[in-house]
Amino acid sequence: MNVRGTHYRSAWWDDAEQALRIVDQTALPHEFRIATLRTSQEVSDAIRTMRVRGAPLIGVVAAYGLALALRADANAEEHAVRDLLATRPTAVNLRWALDRVRSEIRGAPPGERAARALACAERLADEDVEVCRAIGAHGLGLARGLWNQRPPHKQRLEFMTHCNAGWLATVDWGTALSCVYQTHDAGIPVHVWVNETRPRGQGARLTAWELGQHGVPHTVVADVSAGHLLQRGQVDLCVVGSDRTTASGDVCNKIGTYPLALAARDNGVPFYVALPYSSIDWEIKDAVAEIPIESRDAREVTHVAGRAADGSQQTVAVTPSGTPALNFAFDVTPSRLVSALITERGVFAVDPEGLGALARARSKA
Amino acid sequence: MNVRGTHYRSAWWDDAEQALRIVDQTALPHEFRIATLRTSQEVSDAIRTMRVRGAPLIGVVAAYGLALALRADANAEEHAVRDLLATRPTAVNLRWALDRVRSEIRGAPPGERAARALACAERLADEDVEVCRAIGAHGLGLARGLWNQRPPHKQRLEFMTHCNAGWLATVDWGTALSCVYQTHDAGIPVHVWVNETRPRGQGARLTAWELGQHGVPHTVVADVSAGHLLQRGQVDLCVVGSDRTTASGDVCNKIGTYPLALAARDNGVPFYVALPYSSIDWEIKDAVAEIPIESRDAREVTHVAGRAADGSQQTVAVTPSGTPALNFAFDVTPSRLVSALITERGVFAVDPEGLGALARARSKA
Repeated sequence: MNVRGTHYRSAWWDDAEQALRIVDQTALPHEFRIATLRTSQEVSDAIRTMRVRGAPLIGVVAAYGLALALRADANAEEHAVRDLLATRPTAVNLRWALDRVRSEIRGAPPGERAARALACAERLADEDVEVCRAIGAHGLGLARGLWNQRPPHKQRLEFMTHCNAGWLATVDWGTALSCVYQTHDAGIPVHVWVNETRPRGQGARLTAWELGQHGVPHTVVADVSAGHLLQRGQVDLCVVGSDRTTASGDVCNKIGTYPLALAARDNGVPFYVALPYSSIDWEIKDAVAEIPIESRDAREVTHVAGRAADGSQQTVAVTPSGTPALNFAFDVTPSRLVSALITERGVFAVDPEGLGALARARSKA
Repeated sequence: MNVRGTHYRSAWWDDAEQALRIVDQTALPHEFRIATLRTSQEVSDAIRTMRVRGAPLIGVVAAYGLALALRADANAEEHAVRDLLATRPTAVNLRWALDRVRSEIRGAPPGERAARALACAERLADEDVEVCRAIGAHGLGLARGLWNQRPPHKQRLEFMTHCNAGWLATVDWGTALSCVYQTHDAGIPVHVWVNETRPRGQGARLTAWELGQHGVPHTVVADVSAGHLLQRGQVDLCVVGSDRTTASGDVCNKIGTYPLALAARDNGVPFYVALPYSSIDWEIKDAVAEIPIESRDAREVTHVAGRAADGSQQTVAVTPSGTPALNFAFDVTPSRLVSALITERGVFAVDPEGLGALARARSKA
């Protein structure tokens, strides 16, 4: 990712510091701050408080966390894994990445475990970059198809996205936004409707910031505006990310994805989900019943943080004092509302044929 | 409405002051402040800046505004009506109420116009209270029907509402919330899911405050949570207000109503619209094409106002500086998603038979 013209990853290993460095996403968009995480505990805290977030990124960061734990204590594996898994319950990448590290160190002598874990985390980070690049290339194919069939009056391809499935949610490129960036970079004029994504505002804060840094035209709207824009024909395609997708095509993603998919379907607009193959959960049969939906602090609903006129960070209450609130972080979009899954292994329509191909692509890994 | 146990209307004529008094809704929920409006210009400003808001209430308040204009200048009718109509383009009550006053003063000698206009405004206010009481009584009938058919495990009737269609949106009682209050007052245990209603937060700020003052159990959620709650079977009925409804049952209401109705339909939950008969637009054929949708200041999306920790009112930016944003105030819910209209003249199903009865009720006025 480019920040004021300099290339960054969202998280990287700093050899000189022997520590993990991250872009602190709680400081954005008002401040670009790099944080240094030296222990597994600091990594867990950063995931829980969403200084790093995004299903693909928290998997990679957790892998570095396990490596840090093993450097401090070669026998810390069980304890560290339990702590890291407990940070966020919904995304499946967290377990997937930790399983990758664990199988790497299985049977290794204590003195080699930390180095092997770190090498594995580094490999996972590099793989994530390549996966996200490939997802975007497949998304570009879809976007080019829509652009080539455009009516004569159309000036630009109108994307809509929800939450942040961008650079910041992965090590680089993003998932949904990788499709946007590569379409933009290929010279197709694009504009992105950015749903602000209450309550934490990942759209308003992070996606708007990312798109601004990359020079992609965009407009932030309240989440409730999406239906109106779709109804008025102002959106050509929706692309979102996913925290966990089932083999039958049900998609668990940021709260608000389900009503957005309903509105897209009601207006005949394609609804794409961009995801790494690693976020597919092959075990779950009934996504609504089986995927645990994280409930976060009600204060994220009743209070809003931002930059005051004097430049300071302030938090303001928007509800009457003592108002009860609930804060669900994710919802499940039934497969019938999803047009296709965009993965690094290709685009799979959500129909019996496409899902069959998705399952076959698993064994080709 | 009861505020700390004392009964108030949202707006009332103060004989001693010879002025209109209003509950200033921009100060809520953190401060209960009464404002005094002495000129038609002050009334226009109060409507435009949403110190008073809600389709029924702004009609009544505009009528008082016209009376104030005529007290200052008996020939101010045309000018004042133009100013008052220009404040908010979407609601139909504004024009309806001003037409009522104009027909009352037509042909009256200049010296009598102001007094007649004021008497008409007073009558409109009293009528609004009675209309809203009757709407709530019909809503109670629907709620009682659902409650009587409840499954054995059900502890309380779960309403969901969007925006504020309560006391504060009318002179008293409300429309959607009148149904809630009368159900609660009838002894049926209720709980209300309050959609916060971005970007202005009428749910988080006003509906939560009203329900709290009346002692009705409620929980505020981000608008994006509604689909998840409906999908999980946690909502028994949705009830919202309307700024303008067509004879074919299309409903223009606060932005976000359309996606909420989609989610209710997708989960088989009844979706009711509570409205005074005066907000039906009998002229419009195609609601999506013909109803003007107000766009408000983008700053309502990019900045959030609330109470800081020190008790002061603060406004914070939630997007990167300079981010483009759009702010649509209303959307149109197609009639196919609406279960029934709850009016002061009864409940009308949105089907050919119900809409036929709705039209016949017009001539019985």
